[in-house]
Amino acid sequence: MRILKKFMMYCQENDLTVDGAMTDPKGDRSKAPHAQEDPDLYLHVVERRPDGIVVRGAKAHQTGICNSHEVIVMPTISMGPDDKDYAVSFAVPLDTKGLFMIIGRQSCDTRKLEGSSMDVGNPEFGGVEALTIFDDVFVPNDRIFLNGETEYAGMLVERFAGYHRQSYGGCKVGVGDVLIGAAAVAAEYNGAQKASHIKDKLIEMIHLNETLYCCGIACSAEGYPTEAGNYMIDLLLANVCKQNVTRFPYEIVRLAEDIAGGIMVTAPSEKDFRDPKLGKYVDKYLKGVDGVSTENRLRILRLIENMALGTAAVGYRTESMHGAGSPQAQRIMIQRQGNLGYKKQLAKAIAHIE
Amino acid sequence: MRILKKFMMYCQENDLTVDGAMTDPKGDRSKAPHAQEDPDLYLHVVERRPDGIVVRGAKAHQTGICNSHEVIVMPTISMGPDDKDYAVSFAVPLDTKGLFMIIGRQSCDTRKLEGSSMDVGNPEFGGVEALTIFDDVFVPNDRIFLNGETEYAGMLVERFAGYHRQSYGGCKVGVGDVLIGAAAVAAEYNGAQKASHIKDKLIEMIHLNETLYCCGIACSAEGYPTEAGNYMIDLLLANVCKQNVTRFPYEIVRLAEDIAGGIMVTAPSEKDFRDPKLGKYVDKYLKGVDGVSTENRLRILRLIENMALGTAAVGYRTESMHGAGSPQAQRIMIQRQGNLGYKKQLAKAIAHIE
Amino acid sequence: MRILKKFMMYCQENDLTVDGAMTDPKGDRSKAPHAQEDPDLYLHVVERRPDGIVVRGAKAHQTGICNSHEVIVMPTISMGPDDKDYAVSFAVPLDTKGLFMIIGRQSCDTRKLEGSSMDVGNPEFGGVEALTIFDDVFVPNDRIFLNGETEYAGMLVERFAGYHRQSYGGCKVGVGDVLIGAAAVAAEYNGAQKASHIKDKLIEMIHLNETLYCCGIACSAEGYPTEAGNYMIDLLLANVCKQNVTRFPYEIVRLAEDIAGGIMVTAPSEKDFRDPKLGKYVDKYLKGVDGVSTENRLRILRLIENMALGTAAVGYRTESMHGAGSPQAQRIMIQRQGNLGYKKQLAKAIAHIE
Amino acid sequence: MRILKKFMMYCQENDLTVDGAMTDPKGDRSKAPHAQEDPDLYLHVVERRPDGIVVRGAKAHQTGICNSHEVIVMPTISMGPDDKDYAVSFAVPLDTKGLFMIIGRQSCDTRKLEGSSMDVGNPEFGGVEALTIFDDVFVPNDRIFLNGETEYAGMLVERFAGYHRQSYGGCKVGVGDVLIGAAAVAAEYNGAQKASHIKDKLIEMIHLNETLYCCGIACSAEGYPTEAGNYMIDLLLANVCKQNVTRFPYEIVRLAEDIAGGIMVTAPSEKDFRDPKLGKYVDKYLKGVDGVSTENRLRILRLIENMALGTAAVGYRTESMHGAGSPQAQRIMIQRQGNLGYKKQLAKAIAHIE
Repeated sequence: MRILKKFMMYCQENDLTVDGAMTDPKGDRSKAPHAQEDPDLYLHVVERRPDGIVVRGAKAHQTGICNSHEVIVMPTISMGPDDKDYAVSFAVPLDTKGLFMIIGRQSCDTRKLEGSSMDVGNPEFGGVEALTIFDDVFVPNDRIFLNGETEYAGMLVERFAGYHRQSYGGCKVGVGDVLIGAAAVAAEYNGAQKASHIKDKLIEMIHLNETLYCCGIACSAEGYPTEAGNYMIDLLLANVCKQNVTRFPYEIVRLAEDIAGGIMVTAPSEKDFRDPKLGKYVDKYLKGVDGVSTENRLRILRLIENMALGTAAVGYRTESMHGAGSPQAQRIMIQRQGNLGYKKQLAKAIAHIE
Repeated sequence: MRILKKFMMYCQENDLTVDGAMTDPKGDRSKAPHAQEDPDLYLHVVERRPDGIVVRGAKAHQTGICNSHEVIVMPTISMGPDDKDYAVSFAVPLDTKGLFMIIGRQSCDTRKLEGSSMDVGNPEFGGVEALTIFDDVFVPNDRIFLNGETEYAGMLVERFAGYHRQSYGGCKVGVGDVLIGAAAVAAEYNGAQKASHIKDKLIEMIHLNETLYCCGIACSAEGYPTEAGNYMIDLLLANVCKQNVTRFPYEIVRLAEDIAGGIMVTAPSEKDFRDPKLGKYVDKYLKGVDGVSTENRLRILRLIENMALGTAAVGYRTESMHGAGSPQAQRIMIQRQGNLGYKKQLAKAIAHIE
Repeated sequence: MRILKKFMMYCQENDLTVDGAMTDPKGDRSKAPHAQEDPDLYLHVVERRPDGIVVRGAKAHQTGICNSHEVIVMPTISMGPDDKDYAVSFAVPLDTKGLFMIIGRQSCDTRKLEGSSMDVGNPEFGGVEALTIFDDVFVPNDRIFLNGETEYAGMLVERFAGYHRQSYGGCKVGVGDVLIGAAAVAAEYNGAQKASHIKDKLIEMIHLNETLYCCGIACSAEGYPTEAGNYMIDLLLANVCKQNVTRFPYEIVRLAEDIAGGIMVTAPSEKDFRDPKLGKYVDKYLKGVDGVSTENRLRILRLIENMALGTAAVGYRTESMHGAGSPQAQRIMIQRQGNLGYKKQLAKAIAHIE
Repeated sequence: MRILKKFMMYCQENDLTVDGAMTDPKGDRSKAPHAQEDPDLYLHVVERRPDGIVVRGAKAHQTGICNSHEVIVMPTISMGPDDKDYAVSFAVPLDTKGLFMIIGRQSCDTRKLEGSSMDVGNPEFGGVEALTIFDDVFVPNDRIFLNGETEYAGMLVERFAGYHRQSYGGCKVGVGDVLIGAAAVAAEYNGAQKASHIKDKLIEMIHLNETLYCCGIACSAEGYPTEAGNYMIDLLLANVCKQNVTRFPYEIVRLAEDIAGGIMVTAPSEKDFRDPKLGKYVDKYLKGVDGVSTENRLRILRLIENMALGTAAVGYRTESMHGAGSPQAQRIMIQRQGNLGYKKQLAKAIAHIE
C-alpha cells in the first residue's frame, strides 16, 4: 500500500490522469479465473522476474482510458488460493510496450463523422469505451501493488466498487438533469407544457433523479475515516445507491421519450433539413409553437434521442446498469451488509419470542 | 416568533411534551377555508378580546396528542387575505377548557381489549389518533404565535411539513427494519429461508428501506443554518423523501405478506390455540420447522399481520401515505423546488440552442 | 376419473355445493411430505381397509368450506415414489365423523359482533377461512379418486391450480370494481373529484384492474377442449394472470388509500357518532361536501378500510397473493410453459447464428 | 362509407397494399387545427372542384408507407365546426402528383450502409418511417370518404386507433419473443444461464410479454359484430392493451440489457474483429463459454443492441410509446370507457348509501 501511495503522489505531482481498470473479459461466468479454458480471460502474471512481472490479459469497457496517462489494474473478483497469479494490481503508463486499446462501437457512433451538429444530438461532449489489452506487459517492482495476496482481492474489489457505486449518485444525476431539462424544453416547443400529465411526468423525473442524488449524498454523509486516513463511504448505502441507478435512469428515459413525442425517432436528417428542395418542407411541417425555429426543435429532440438511444445512452442507460458492477453484484452486497440478524432480533423482542 | 421561542423554552424547562396540530378537517376540498359552508371546518378565531382570542374548529389525525402536555396549533394551508381569521397559531395545555379529543378507530383496535398477547401482534407498542376539538377555546395573548398574518401561513406550513417529511426517512425506516426482521424470522420458521426467491425478496425489502433512509439522511446533510439559528433541512429532498415513503412501505408490506404465507391471515385465535380440546390440533398442524414452537411461529405471523393489516398498519401504511401531507402535496413542492429553469438551460447549452 | 365424474353428477343432481381442498399445512417447507418430522403435516392414508381408507391430516385456508356440503381433497404438490400414502384424492360430506373445522381470525373480525353496520364497512358480504382437520376420517371406496398413483399428483395440482389461477382474473376484478367505485365516491364526498391527479389515479386503478380482466379472458379464449370433453384453460396465461393478481390489487389498494385520505383510518367509531354528547362534533367536523351526510361519508370510508385493512383485505390482498398458489409457484410454471427454446431459435435465426 | 367499401374491394382485387395515415404534424399542441399559425400543420382541403378536392398538409411517422401502393388519409383528432376543412378522409396511390416522402433517421441507421452483417444486429428485417407530404394533391370524388362531416372525425379516430391499439398486443409481443430469446442465448454464451437471478429475469420478461398478449387476445375475445358486418374490438380493453405496451417493452429491454452485460455496448466493430492484426485479440478476449464462437456471441449481443438502442429500438421502444396514440390518449379513453358510474353504484349499494 505504501507503494500505491507513492505512485498516487507521483501522479499528483506530475499532473497525470489515472484510469482504474477492473473488469476482466471473464469468458465463462460459471468458472473461476484459473478454471477458464483460456487462462488469459482474467489478467494474470505469466512470468516473474527479479525486477518485476510480466502480465497478460485484458480489461473491458474502460471508459476514460483513451485520455489517461496511467492505468491502475486491479482484480475484478474475490479470489481463492488457486487464483494466485490473478491476484495482481499495478500501474503502468498507457504507452507501455504491449499495451494497446481497441475502441468499442457505440450506438450511432458514426454520426460523429457525418459533420452534422444537429443529428449528433450532443455536439459538445462524448467519450468512448475501450477493450484494453495487456499483451505480455512488463511491470517493474515499484509499480506493483498486489502480487499473489489473494486474500486482499475481495476487499480491494469491494472498496473500489463501493466508491464507484457511490459516485453514480452524482454522475448519473447530472446527466439526468440535462435529460429532464431537454424534455421540458421539448414540451414547451410542442406547446404541451401546461398539460397536467406533462407537468406530472416532469415531477416524476425530478423525483426519481433526486432520489438517486439522496443516495449519493447519504453514502458520503454516513462515511467514516479509516485508520489509514482515507474517508470510507457507507458500503451498504453505496450499493443501495447503485442498485437504484440500475432502475431509475431507465424510467427517466421512458418518460422523456413519452414527453418528446415520436418525432424524436422519425425526424429527417440535417442533410434533408438543409436540402435546397426538401428543406423547406421539413422546416414547415416540423415546426412547433410560434417563436421557436424548427431547427431548435429538432436540436432538442436529437439531444433526447442521443441520451435515450444514441451514443450517450450507452453511458446513461447501459453503464448505469453494468458500470461499477451489475445489479446482482449489489444485491449480494446488500444481503451481506444489511444486518438481517439485528432486524430479526428486533422482531423477536417485540413479538415476545424468547 | 419571540413568543414561540419563549414558549418552547418554558416547555423544555418544565419537561413538557408538545404535539404539533396542523391538519384541519377541510370539508369540501375544492373550497378555501372562508368559503366552506360551515366556517368551522378550518380552525379560526371567533372572538378577539383584549387579553387573547377565542378559537373554534378541530384538528384531525393527531397521533401523539393523547400523551402530550401541550398542543401547538398551526394553519394547514397557504392563505389569502379572505382567510385572515384562519391564519392563527398558538399553544394551549391539553386540559384547557373547551378542548377535548375523540379517539379514532384503528383496524383491529379491539384486539387490545381481548387480553391476548399473541393475537394483538405487537404486545409492546402502539398508539392512537384523535380528532381534537377546540370548542370555543380561549388563548391568552402570550401563547399566540400567529394572528391574522396570512402571508406567513404558507411558509409555516412548508417548513413544518418539510421537517415532518424528512423525519419519515427515519421513523418509517425503523418500522421497516422490524417488518423485514419479522419476515426473515417467518421464512426461517417455514423452512424457506434458503430459497433464492425468499433471499431476493428480503434483499429487495432492505434495498427499499435503505433508500428511504438515504433520503432522510440527505435532507439533513444538505441542510443549512438559518439566520435565526435553526437548522433547515433541504426542502426539495425532504419532499422527495416523503414521496418515496408514500410508495416503498406498501411494497415492503407486499413482500412481507408474500414471505409470511397465507397462514398470517387465516390462523385461528389464541383462544382456540389455548382451548383444551382444539388447542392440540392448532399446535400440531400449524407447526413449522423442528425446534420452533407453534406459538412462536404464530407470534411472528401476528406481528406481520399487525403491521400489514392491523393497528400498526395504520401507522406504517396509511400514515406513510398521508402523514406530513398527502402525495400530491409533495409533488407540488417538488415542482416548485426542482429548478426546472436551470435544467432547461443546461439542455439548451448542450444542444446549441441560443 | 370415472368415479370423480359420477360424484360430480351426484352433487349436481342433489344441488350440493363442493369445496376443493388442496393446501396442506406443510410444516418444514424444505422437506417432502414423507420427510416431515410429523407425518401428518401433509394429509395421508393411515389405514387401508377392504371397503375404503382412513386418512389423517389437515387442509389450511379453506375459504368456502363452512358453507359447503361436500369437500374434495386433493394433493398439494407433485410427489415422488416415497410419498405414495400422500397421493390421495377423495370426497366426503362435511359432517363426516372425524372431520371438523377451526375458523381463522381475520383482521377486524370482531367488528362483526359489535352490531355496527357502519364500522363493519361491508354490512352485506363476508366470509371466513377454516383450518379443516381430518382426524382419522374413513373414506369409502366409491369416493376415492386417487390412491397412491403419485405420478398423477403433479398434473392434478397443475390443472386445478390452473383453473383457480384463471378464475382470479374475474373474482378479484369484481372486488376491484367495488374498490374503484368506493374511491371515486370518497373523492366526490371530499370535493376532490375534479383534481387532475385524482382522475389520473382512478384511471390507473381501472387500467390495472382491466389488465387483470384481460388475463382472465385470454386464459379462456386460448383454452381448448380435452379428449375427456372438459375445456382446458391456457396454462401459461393462467399463471401469468395469477402473477399479476399478486401485484396489481396491492397497487389498487394503495391508490384507494391515497384518494380516500387519512380519515379512513382515524375516524371515530359509530358509537361515538351516535353518542348524544360527542356525536354532534363528529357529525360537524367530518362533514365533506354539501349535500352529503357525514354518515354516508363515513360509510364509504369504512368500506375502503374494510377492503384495504379489514376483513375483506384478507381476501383482496393476502388471498390475491397466496390463493391458488404463492407467486413463486406461478413463476416456476411460467418458466416451464414459456417455451424459451423456441424463442432462442427465433433470435438465432435472425442473428444468423447457425 | 359505401365508397370506402368499394375502394377496399378494389385494393383486394388488385392485390394492393394500403397504408393508413393518421398523424398530422400538429405544430402547437395547445391549439386546434384551424387555430394554428400555419393552417397546413393539419392536412386540409385547400380547394373544392366539381370533380374532387385539392388537399395540403403532411402525415408524420408513416411506418409502412414506402412499401405500400395506396395511402388512406384520416383525421387525427376529434373536430369542431371550425375544423370543417380538416375533416377529410380519402385514398390516393402513392405516385400521385404532389405526394412525396422524406425518410426519417433511425438510431444507427447508417450501419445498414456499412456492409457489416454483424454490427447491423438484425441482418434480416427492418423498416423506415416517413414524413409524407401532400403538396396540393388532387383527390377525385370517388376516392373521398369524409369531406367536412366533422361530427364523424372523433369516431373515426377512436375506432381506427382502437384496432391499432389492440394490434400491438400481437405485434410487440412477437418482437418481445425475439428479445427474450436473444437474452436467453446471451446468458448461455456467458455461462450464466443457471444463475437463479438470470432465470428469474427471463421469467419476468416472459411474464410481462404474455401479459401484453393477454390484453391483445381479450380485446378480440370481447369484441362484437357491428351492424355493418365488421367485427369491433372491445374499446376499453384495446386502450388498456396499448397502455401496457407503453410500459412493459421498456422493462423487457431493461432486463435484456441486464442479462446481456455491458459488452453489448462496448464491443469493437466487425471491422476490428476481421482485422488481420487486431482481430485475433477481439476473438480471444470476447470469447464466452467453450463451444460457442466469439462471432456468434457478438452476433447475439448486436441483435440485443439493435432492439435496445438501434434501428429496431425505434419500433420496439418509441413506437410502443407513441404508435397508435401516446399514453395520455389511452388514459382519456380509459376514463371515458371505464364505466365509473356503475362502479360507484356498486360501492354505494354495499356500503348502504341510499
